[in-house]
Amino acid sequence: YGKNTIKFLRLHKEGKKHFVKEVEVCAHLRLTSPQEYLEGNNSLVIPTDTIKNIVLVLAKKNGIPSLEQFAIDICNHFMTTFCQVAYVKTYVQEVPWQRLHEDGVPHVHSFICVPDGIRFCEAEQCRNGPLIVFAGIKDLKLMKTTQSGFEGFYKNEHTTLPERHDRILCGELFCKWSYGECKDFDFDCIWKKIRECILEAFAGPPDCGEYSPSYQKTVNCIQMLVLSRVSQVQVIEVVLNNTFYNVVDMKNLGLTNDKEVLVPVEAPYGSCACTLGRK
Amino acid sequence: YGKNTIKFLRLHKEGKKHFVKEVEVCAHLRLTSPQEYLEGNNSLVIPTDTIKNIVLVLAKKNGIPSLEQFAIDICNHFMTTFCQVAYVKTYVQEVPWQRLHEDGVPHVHSFICVPDGIRFCEAEQCRNGPLIVFAGIKDLKLMKTTQSGFEGFYKNEHTTLPERHDRILCGELFCKWSYGECKDFDFDCIWKKIRECILEAFAGPPDCGEYSPSYQKTVNCIQMLVLSRVSQVQVIEVVLNNTFYNVVDMKNLGLTNDKEVLVPVEAPYGSCACTLGRK
Amino acid sequence: YGKNTIKFLRLHKEGKKHFVKEVEVCAHLRLTSPQEYLEGNNSLVIPTDTIKNIVLVLAKKNGIPSLEQFAIDICNHFMTTFCQVAYVKTYVQEVPWQRLHEDGVPHVHSFICVPDGIRFCEAEQCRNGPLIVFAGIKDLKLMKTTQSGFEGFYKNEHTTLPERHDRILCGELFCKWSYGECKDFDFDCIWKKIRECILEAFAGPPDCGEYSPSYQKTVNCIQMLVLSRVSQVQVIEVVLNNTFYNVVDMKNLGLTNDKEVLVPVEAPYGSCACTLGRK
Amino acid sequence: YGKNTIKFLRLHKEGKKHFVKEVEVCAHLRLTSPQEYLEGNNSLVIPTDTIKNIVLVLAKKNGIPSLEQFAIDICNHFMTTFCQVAYVKTYVQEVPWQRLHEDGVPHVHSFICVPDGIRFCEAEQCRNGPLIVFAGIKDLKLMKTTQSGFEGFYKNEHTTLPERHDRILCGELFCKWSYGECKDFDFDCIWKKIRECILEAFAGPPDCGEYSPSYQKTVNCIQMLVLSRVSQVQVIEVVLNNTFYNVVDMKNLGLTNDKEVLVPVEAPYGSCACTLGRK
Repeated sequence: YGKNTIKFLRLHKEGKKHFVKEVEVCAHLRLTSPQEYLEGNNSLVIPTDTIKNIVLVLAKKNGIPSLEQFAIDICNHFMTTFCQVAYVKTYVQEVPWQRLHEDGVPHVHSFICVPDGIRFCEAEQCRNGPLIVFAGIKDLKLMKTTQSGFEGFYKNEHTTLPERHDRILCGELFCKWSYGECKDFDFDCIWKKIRECILEAFAGPPDCGEYSPSYQKTVNCIQMLVLSRVSQVQVIEVVLNNTFYNVVDMKNLGLTNDKEVLVPVEAPYGSCACTLGRK
Repeated sequence: YGKNTIKFLRLHKEGKKHFVKEVEVCAHLRLTSPQEYLEGNNSLVIPTDTIKNIVLVLAKKNGIPSLEQFAIDICNHFMTTFCQVAYVKTYVQEVPWQRLHEDGVPHVHSFICVPDGIRFCEAEQCRNGPLIVFAGIKDLKLMKTTQSGFEGFYKNEHTTLPERHDRILCGELFCKWSYGECKDFDFDCIWKKIRECILEAFAGPPDCGEYSPSYQKTVNCIQMLVLSRVSQVQVIEVVLNNTFYNVVDMKNLGLTNDKEVLVPVEAPYGSCACTLGRK
Repeated sequence: YGKNTIKFLRLHKEGKKHFVKEVEVCAHLRLTSPQEYLEGNNSLVIPTDTIKNIVLVLAKKNGIPSLEQFAIDICNHFMTTFCQVAYVKTYVQEVPWQRLHEDGVPHVHSFICVPDGIRFCEAEQCRNGPLIVFAGIKDLKLMKTTQSGFEGFYKNEHTTLPERHDRILCGELFCKWSYGECKDFDFDCIWKKIRECILEAFAGPPDCGEYSPSYQKTVNCIQMLVLSRVSQVQVIEVVLNNTFYNVVDMKNLGLTNDKEVLVPVEAPYGSCACTLGRK
Repeated sequence: YGKNTIKFLRLHKEGKKHFVKEVEVCAHLRLTSPQEYLEGNNSLVIPTDTIKNIVLVLAKKNGIPSLEQFAIDICNHFMTTFCQVAYVKTYVQEVPWQRLHEDGVPHVHSFICVPDGIRFCEAEQCRNGPLIVFAGIKDLKLMKTTQSGFEGFYKNEHTTLPERHDRILCGELFCKWSYGECKDFDFDCIWKKIRECILEAFAGPPDCGEYSPSYQKTVNCIQMLVLSRVSQVQVIEVVLNNTFYNVVDMKNLGLTNDKEVLVPVEAPYGSCACTLGRK
């Protein structure tokens, strides 16, 4: 197969008001015949440069109504236009530009980049198969400074970790879900709703939080809440890359450190992941 | 000289409400004698490990009232405690944790990382000299989709750039300023005010913006606004790393592209910088 | 499942001569029951910290005879020791320290890091299944300044790429292969042999090279040569991340540029990949 | 001032044999008048695009005989051509392509990237001032597994580091030196000689090494050897970014770890630097 990454910016104006989407599009293609690999026969090969042109022309003609719709448009174009394409997957990722506000007033054409979780989506299709759409969020860094512990785990002669009932829970979250029969979904609205579910399940109620007995259980809580609240989601995968913090031992320095000063532990670096679907 | 980077998290509780600061501290020391370099005599050398302990102990004892105050505390400690230190500079940078909100309600102990400009500061002192404090913001990515041009520049036989009166202005901003006699400044409040000045000067009025004839002039506007609004700032340096965008030529593809689809130009990559002080 | 990354250095001495291996080990585990996700019951969970201890203890006891043997040892340990483990995968990657030489004389204890292709391996096993070993090389950057072209490709209205019969071929190579029944293989020796095959197939004879009609065909040549020369390899995957170079058009500057000055094209960025096995 | 980065590849053929230099050039300019900042008057501004064209044209016309000569050529061009330029600094950095060899035979047109220390240089000039040339090496990672200690350092109540007489010495080296009146120097030859001095001073004799009582002393040894062997060097700056390794304490795991298994300490991360000139 071949792969291809294109970065560009799509600007759209309504009177004096500007709308901007900067995206990175990655298109994977697999052809029906591997003759270019085996024989060096290029007659079916669609050059990287042509793929770039197609993506840019589609952006120019259709705009980017949503990341998901744009990914669908690209898949459809390749399947419809090129009979030598056996499989196409399109990944679209957004640069998180947000409109600037001055004293609460939105600016007509100025933007700031706020990378607090990157939105992405995927559309994929095999010839004669259904078009499947995924969406997700990545690089979302979250922390809970209490209401987290880790106890009752398996122990043997290699165990040195003490049990803890009040530790820091910190990590970088990756979350990707698939939509079933995705007809006229409001992808932007659903995405925002899922992001809110993730934050709510991670943090718990604002006044007291909710106790997390492990990273794994927090992963599961996020999945359960999304599946219960957002009916369009069929399957949801969550990966939590853990950052561990150790309370600094200050006994040698004559001080008692009551979880006030902590250092991040760079290695071992762990992650836990789970994929959950509907019955 | 020697340099030293320490990362840690300082947690502070007021009842059920938690406050978190995660920082990276870099301490530069120069000793009065270079004997450890020339003779391998280590008797005056303060090990990296000791410096780390001192920074952590100060964080434990004093907390981090503001980045600037913490940097000042560290400088003072080294100058007061070690007579072999000829010069000390402390750089403190913040991990941009923000309190999570659910339906507008702030969470007592959950945070999200929002890197839309990183706050940092520096304090430096030579023995018998004044303690000087700097503060700044870096990695602040901004974009204006109109009200920017570049015309009337110097031309010769190597010039191929066309004049433009409606281009994209996009860049990553670095801004660092020095405070004069800094006594009882409210560093947090001043920093927020300067950040607002930067955004305002970059973007112009929300309903129409302000025309920028060059990256250089925008740099100057930012400096002028900060100096006029914030009396505590003595000198201000601004560096703007430009990202250029080219309108994609779609003539060969049979389309007219009216600044709708643009691609970022990775190289040449330019930057402009200026330092401006009061008379 | 859970994942876990550990970095460490294993030092081994034979008289005055030192041998060093610095590795990054990543262990993936899947347990037989997902109860820690669903119920927050940690009784079967093997903590990250315990996994780290096991890896370090194995390195201490057995050393790292080869990356592959070390990965096998780790898999075996987890399968043998923990009946709750349903699946284990171990990835081991090497920091490319090479012994320093002075005037051709090898140094007994000094090393230099030479990252011209990173060696890695994987061992994976499902309970009651066979242990499968993979090895590979990544981040290997290669360039041919001639004997490469791209012609006869598919064309339509979105095609703007001209045909070229003398372009630069440049890319970053990823190559991963699986061993079949791997008994007493000399993994170090085989790895070196495969690396040589890759370079030979990429470059062709030293006096004249060999014409490459596409990135795809070069990928296939590498696979064919490895499969024909190294009988232990069962399946081989090659991914070539292409860097394109454009000859700078200097007509406007009054010069003819006969493929002397070229600029790398950052986007579109392409890659081609293929997996090939024995019949 | 303004800054500008350009990446390109210069290809040169002698019969069937190809020579390739891929470089990143960064040009800093300061103009005699700041009118473009203060007044938005662009009439003296040399656009990024023009600077790029000049660098590419010089590479086309003169080739890149050495990095240093190319940097000198660029400085001279700007000073001679533009009377509005008050100061110019040119930084040139090389992509470390090396010719491929097959069974010891050099290949006519194939190359491999071997980043074991990156070569760079700088040339700078103020109007009416001398042209000064610097050269250097960066990202050179070196390790000694013995013959290194750290003892007799300053101690107080914040000291927790034990004295060690047999530790790992590991770091990333940056080294930059200035040439005095640089007339007809063979820059390539001198650079190679200095690289050898660095390795020799770091490692000591191949059969036994040389004891290093501190990172600082090793920095000084490198400087002293270069100054004594290479008469063209006037001043030499060395920065050593230390990577510390801790011997893993395995007592709790029932094992004695005699400096066999060590883990890198990510923070505190230290560095020591020194600049040394001739009397």
